[in-house]
Amino acid sequence: MDLSYFTNKLSAGLAELRYGDQPISLYEPIRYIMGLGGKRIRPLLTLLGAHLFTDDLDAIVKPALATEVFHNFTLLHDDLMDQAPLRRGQATVHEKWNPNVAILSGDVMLVRAYELLFDIRPELLAHVLRRFSQTAAEVCEGQQWDMNFETETEVSIAQYLDMIRLKTAVLLGFALELGALLGGASREDADHLRQFGVGIGLAFQLRDDLLDVYGDAATFGKRVGGDIVSDKKTYLLLTAQAQANAAQRAVLAQHIGQPVPDAEAKVQAVRAVYDELEIRPQTEQLINKYFLDALQHLERVVAPETRKKPLHQLALQLLERES
Amino acid sequence: MDLSYFTNKLSAGLAELRYGDQPISLYEPIRYIMGLGGKRIRPLLTLLGAHLFTDDLDAIVKPALATEVFHNFTLLHDDLMDQAPLRRGQATVHEKWNPNVAILSGDVMLVRAYELLFDIRPELLAHVLRRFSQTAAEVCEGQQWDMNFETETEVSIAQYLDMIRLKTAVLLGFALELGALLGGASREDADHLRQFGVGIGLAFQLRDDLLDVYGDAATFGKRVGGDIVSDKKTYLLLTAQAQANAAQRAVLAQHIGQPVPDAEAKVQAVRAVYDELEIRPQTEQLINKYFLDALQHLERVVAPETRKKPLHQLALQLLERES
Repeated sequence: MDLSYFTNKLSAGLAELRYGDQPISLYEPIRYIMGLGGKRIRPLLTLLGAHLFTDDLDAIVKPALATEVFHNFTLLHDDLMDQAPLRRGQATVHEKWNPNVAILSGDVMLVRAYELLFDIRPELLAHVLRRFSQTAAEVCEGQQWDMNFETETEVSIAQYLDMIRLKTAVLLGFALELGALLGGASREDADHLRQFGVGIGLAFQLRDDLLDVYGDAATFGKRVGGDIVSDKKTYLLLTAQAQANAAQRAVLAQHIGQPVPDAEAKVQAVRAVYDELEIRPQTEQLINKYFLDALQHLERVVAPETRKKPLHQLALQLLERES
Repeated sequence: MDLSYFTNKLSAGLAELRYGDQPISLYEPIRYIMGLGGKRIRPLLTLLGAHLFTDDLDAIVKPALATEVFHNFTLLHDDLMDQAPLRRGQATVHEKWNPNVAILSGDVMLVRAYELLFDIRPELLAHVLRRFSQTAAEVCEGQQWDMNFETETEVSIAQYLDMIRLKTAVLLGFALELGALLGGASREDADHLRQFGVGIGLAFQLRDDLLDVYGDAATFGKRVGGDIVSDKKTYLLLTAQAQANAAQRAVLAQHIGQPVPDAEAKVQAVRAVYDELEIRPQTEQLINKYFLDALQHLERVVAPETRKKPLHQLALQLLERES
């Protein structure tokens, strides 16, 4: 079955969502950020997860969208905390309105995300809500670690990987687990799908780190080298710092955490160290490891192979993307 | 039964709550604000509501505390939005830590509030969660209206009363409804208790407006006249503006929304207009109306009169308080 079959269901479901009316200043920002688009990967994973076990997806669209509303809630609050001016090329909510509107609209979005789950049949409801809440708290923990790392001098690679697991991967895992549970999977299969999603999420985030440095400027949406310019502690930088010899360490120290008179020179100097240390192939190796581990979990799910194809296909798309 | 029987149960339950450990900067602010104290009125209402129908309160303490965690979440985010330096005489979270910590810790508190409800028996769970979510969204709506009113020139008395209903009263109503439902009440009785709580909440908030102007400086916790100094559109001010003659309107216009060279003179001038217009007895009349309407709902609840006594007593305490 083609992915468009699922994305069409999601688009129809999204168009039907109602967040509230009054005060307009509370609810308009929610419609705005939900309308900015995006790939709707999380609810798509939920539908694909359910589709492994059932053809009856109509009742699953609404709870699937809980993951999308939740994800956009985190974007809204994260953009405020990061003081980001743009989201998907448009003004962020705190810029277009103000910080207080961003705080309060985000709060209501979290409430609305929960509400999308309440039609789940009673025997599953408490379990799904516990898993959703645990995931939600973990995503907040990931964001807090990410902010903490900005000012911490010593961040280990293990800490970084745990941060991206919490901030990005667990929600992809939950989206798949949710679909599995709603589709009637066993708890064991639901957990394999969750681990598949977590692995894909980790690989996806590392790919993001890699694209920032080695992406094609023409197809990569953001400015290439942005992470280097902003001294972001990515997997690439932390690995380079861990493996650098004295000379390389000096080059990194000269550029990272220092004022940037020439951004292009900074990117080139740091990238040269990465190249010497073969950071790119090392990162690709870790991405492949996460990807293959993830696929093993998908393989162990008891479902027809033909039905696993769209998930396989989507996972590949996510990792081969150029932007 | 004495109120201390219920407050002791709540204190023990509060002491057992666990919000999370790492990162410390995410969870320490939650322990901090929950530890600042307060009267714990909302979970107390839940226990008293349940006690009308059952003696078995042990399983109700945890869901009752959802209302307290939620309430403190709103305080945390409201204090940030209002840029308040103090909460219960201590530094607010955004002051003691920073605004980002306040945003994210608050977000996790909302998640934790939901989690406290998930042990509710399955046949009630979805209904309780729908009502909780509706209440949570309404509280956010009330806060947004409150912020909007600061910059709006025309706010009607009806709009103001609706704002305090949303911002304050509906959560007291939900706390009682929750207790009733968990205690085994009919939906009809649960709704009467909800309306009792909403009425008490409206009366309580109007009493707050009144105390700000006519409270005893020695017993009132805040500075008397603070609402007048800050041009807050309270029931008293809006009623005075609606009923003022040309001369009184001129006095109000001369002081409200103007720079304050002499705060004491401003308070005295505005209070003089209130006195001329008999704003105090008018407000007391409305408080009494809400209180009596609320009591009628309590009377209609099918439960032993002796069990209603603690609720009656608490409602009186809330309205006769001097701070």
